[in-house]
Amino acid sequence: MKQGKLTLVGAGPGDPDLISVKGVKAIRRADVVLYDALTHPDLLDYARSGVRCLSVGKRAGRHSFKQEDINDLIVEYAGKYGHVVRLKGGDPFVFARGQEEIEHARLHGLETEVIIGVSSVNLGGMYDIPLTKRGVNESFWVVTATTASGKLSNDVHLVAQSSATGVFLMGLRKIDKITAAYARYGKHHLPVAVISNGSLSNAEVVVGTISDIEEKVREGKVQTPAIFIAGEVVKNHSPGVLVSQLTQKQPAYV
Amino acid sequence: MKQGKLTLVGAGPGDPDLISVKGVKAIRRADVVLYDALTHPDLLDYARSGVRCLSVGKRAGRHSFKQEDINDLIVEYAGKYGHVVRLKGGDPFVFARGQEEIEHARLHGLETEVIIGVSSVNLGGMYDIPLTKRGVNESFWVVTATTASGKLSNDVHLVAQSSATGVFLMGLRKIDKITAAYARYGKHHLPVAVISNGSLSNAEVVVGTISDIEEKVREGKVQTPAIFIAGEVVKNHSPGVLVSQLTQKQPAYV
Repeated sequence: MKQGKLTLVGAGPGDPDLISVKGVKAIRRADVVLYDALTHPDLLDYARSGVRCLSVGKRAGRHSFKQEDINDLIVEYAGKYGHVVRLKGGDPFVFARGQEEIEHARLHGLETEVIIGVSSVNLGGMYDIPLTKRGVNESFWVVTATTASGKLSNDVHLVAQSSATGVFLMGLRKIDKITAAYARYGKHHLPVAVISNGSLSNAEVVVGTISDIEEKVREGKVQTPAIFIAGEVVKNHSPGVLVSQLTQKQPAYV
Repeated sequence: MKQGKLTLVGAGPGDPDLISVKGVKAIRRADVVLYDALTHPDLLDYARSGVRCLSVGKRAGRHSFKQEDINDLIVEYAGKYGHVVRLKGGDPFVFARGQEEIEHARLHGLETEVIIGVSSVNLGGMYDIPLTKRGVNESFWVVTATTASGKLSNDVHLVAQSSATGVFLMGLRKIDKITAAYARYGKHHLPVAVISNGSLSNAEVVVGTISDIEEKVREGKVQTPAIFIAGEVVKNHSPGVLVSQLTQKQPAYV
């Protein structure tokens, strides 16, 4: 049995060309690839022929892997095959449980390597919604709408009082609670945007205010995965800009 | 005179292999490259032979370009040469004035494209300091220690009360004010880390608490550029791990 190695790779937020050069090099050295549902299938083309590529994503359909199953699979495959590359959408350490995988692998004697990635937090820049703009805001705050407990983080009430751009990942699921928190601090007219399938050819950007975004998202039947951005920086967005730069490749998730 | 185009490219946080595949493709199509001091010089090797590559970074030595000069240079060079690739360290929309460059270019009739990048915000993941860890924190907050006004953002007082991981870019300059804000909320023992030259072979990680980090940084003569991270996630860090994965290439800045 080989000692084995785990390389955790951030695959970026959708467009397969948003993976890093270092990430591509890792896939080329993989003996096995375990990938999430939100990673683009074209990335698997970098693997050498005969390399086993297995989806462990929760959206993947038939199989539904728990985090513990994935941890065990990494150790099992590293022992059997050698170098396991674990492809994760976005960056592996932004609400993605990357650290748990790394620690479990080390506990079982695997060598580990980390290749950070472009996070979906940064998607707004593609649509004239910069995370920061001089003179407009001085910080941004990133929250997941899907916490371990299933409740929206209490931190949202602090974010709503701040001047920070608020970025909520997987924000559609809790859009009512997010907007209620901002409304409580009188921010009914704060500009907000929802970016769905960002960086892919089926991307959608819906812009509104705290007051009306929930209705707009419902009417537009906006799809997950989506991020919710709240803040004055959203004012920069003008519809139709930058669409040409989106990849024309088939998205990973439909 | 050609109409010209500006492509804004996030070059990533140091290691030249942390640029995206899309960013590399853009450099290969460039007629001119304007790059910041924090972008790695090896990235210029992707440019075709004869393509003019000009440093516009403030650390670059003899020349010191103001933002307005850079904006004008983009328009001038796009008119003269065609496709200007603007290489910026990290992601172009995280305290990097990318939106100003895009807007100025459009005002002057240039086509624009944006390629987001790996931000230095995400560097902690390489050193066992995940931005988020399930059960430990539910959000992270990113602020620059170098605001337009020169003062530290007031939002720091909200963050110090939250469960958020606090990430301070260029944090060495205001380390006294950052630690004072946390101390005010009784967080003297909160684990903190300073990561200098992250992702490069001369990277340094200094770990401590709100109480002692300032002294440790002074004693260790820690160099800029550096990020400051405050939060329970810092506890995961163990010295010496992951050093092998750092690039052995010469850093861009010494």
